[in-house]
Amino acid sequence: MPRKQLVAEVINVGNELLDGRTINTNLNWLCGKLSELGYVVRRATIVRDDLNDIAKAVREALRRKPMWLFISGGLGPTHDDKTLQAVARALGKRLKLDKEAFESIRRRYLELAEAGVIKDPSLTKERLKMAKLPEGSKPLRNRVGTAPGVLLEKSGVKIVCLPGVPKELMDIFENELRPLLRETAGDRGFLIQQLFVEGVVESRLAPLLVETMKRFKGVYLKSNPKGAETVSQVIVDFIAEKKDEKKLLEAMEYFSKRIQEIKA
Amino acid sequence: MPRKQLVAEVINVGNELLDGRTINTNLNWLCGKLSELGYVVRRATIVRDDLNDIAKAVREALRRKPMWLFISGGLGPTHDDKTLQAVARALGKRLKLDKEAFESIRRRYLELAEAGVIKDPSLTKERLKMAKLPEGSKPLRNRVGTAPGVLLEKSGVKIVCLPGVPKELMDIFENELRPLLRETAGDRGFLIQQLFVEGVVESRLAPLLVETMKRFKGVYLKSNPKGAETVSQVIVDFIAEKKDEKKLLEAMEYFSKRIQEIKA
Repeated sequence: MPRKQLVAEVINVGNELLDGRTINTNLNWLCGKLSELGYVVRRATIVRDDLNDIAKAVREALRRKPMWLFISGGLGPTHDDKTLQAVARALGKRLKLDKEAFESIRRRYLELAEAGVIKDPSLTKERLKMAKLPEGSKPLRNRVGTAPGVLLEKSGVKIVCLPGVPKELMDIFENELRPLLRETAGDRGFLIQQLFVEGVVESRLAPLLVETMKRFKGVYLKSNPKGAETVSQVIVDFIAEKKDEKKLLEAMEYFSKRIQEIKA
Repeated sequence: MPRKQLVAEVINVGNELLDGRTINTNLNWLCGKLSELGYVVRRATIVRDDLNDIAKAVREALRRKPMWLFISGGLGPTHDDKTLQAVARALGKRLKLDKEAFESIRRRYLELAEAGVIKDPSLTKERLKMAKLPEGSKPLRNRVGTAPGVLLEKSGVKIVCLPGVPKELMDIFENELRPLLRETAGDRGFLIQQLFVEGVVESRLAPLLVETMKRFKGVYLKSNPKGAETVSQVIVDFIAEKKDEKKLLEAMEYFSKRIQEIKA
């Protein structure tokens, strides 16, 4: 593509993502939203609830200098919620009680007590932990849960920490981050169109994919075989920036015609 | 845990995993199987269909010296299938036509032609590509698709390349790899038991999780809030090696009693 890519990276934290308990739907959702907004997620890293492992992954990601780094999971009140501590360590910053985060958490537990969900709203050390953010952070409001998200910047990389609970992650992304992401993306955004091809195996499509990409620069083709080569059904994705929509449609038309010729 | 961990890593290759098109079920499935067998997946890395990105991820994983490195995706016949080339580059090896892989691919296309799925079974360069493996590789038989898996070793790390099509990945894992994995794992294997807790918020459970882990060494507890702290439903996972099954059950009993005390 001619324009410089808007590169994003994702780090997902959680043992449950690496031992078969949980399917990483957060990554998929984040990637879809970022792609629509024009960002290219270049790499995702999944690590366990281990302070060193998280800090290492963060340091490595920062060295690759993405525009945005999204980290999900590990913001809660329990012993295995270590993300903010790890981020602070990776950045050489200290954790500091954040006034705004403190207030929102305090209010939250008062509400929960009033609603009868908990007996005692006092801010135990486990609850206070969620208000201790790396120095220089801005808390991101969580409308559907307790732990706030976190936004901070290091050497030009915007770092975001989000809760691992999907609806909290989605809430903060949509309400707190989307406007910022739109601002740094401008008119970018990708389109994906799919074409269903039957009766031609993938290996036979391969040269035609390359030919079409050469002819329509800026349009990227990717084939997805459905159930191995024995059943010759393939879904072909046509991907282009929004500004190249016309070219994308032309590429699809050209490709379809050539498929008919092969089949004839 | 007292014994040395059997560490595995996973690299998943594919643009579709990083732009929202595909949920990474392969990672979840692999992690579940590896965990049952006693392996700890320490990190997973997802990269795009980019030669440099894949090679870099492979080199980085090798430096961490896992016992096993599983790479999925990018073994097929199209332009964006670059995994074997990237692995060869990362290892400083050349790609070489493998006799056994060649034979299985040749046979495959003859069968497809006989079955009327394709017209021409000749081995085009796209089809031949799947038989070109990094020097020193052993092809792994793929019973349900065309591209064989690949097994090779570098500085004590067992490297496995698997197709990204889930049923092909599963087939090769179950039939070709399971016996090898069982051999290197011995009597290892993890147990996971879940406990459903209602009426106690996660921040209140937090100190009890730590207390129980201290009391029952070798048993790991992890809480999973269901729908934020407002609804106080939490699933607590109890994880231990198979040999510690008794201890795991005792920990669950202890934990349940303490929960009752908190609620009372």
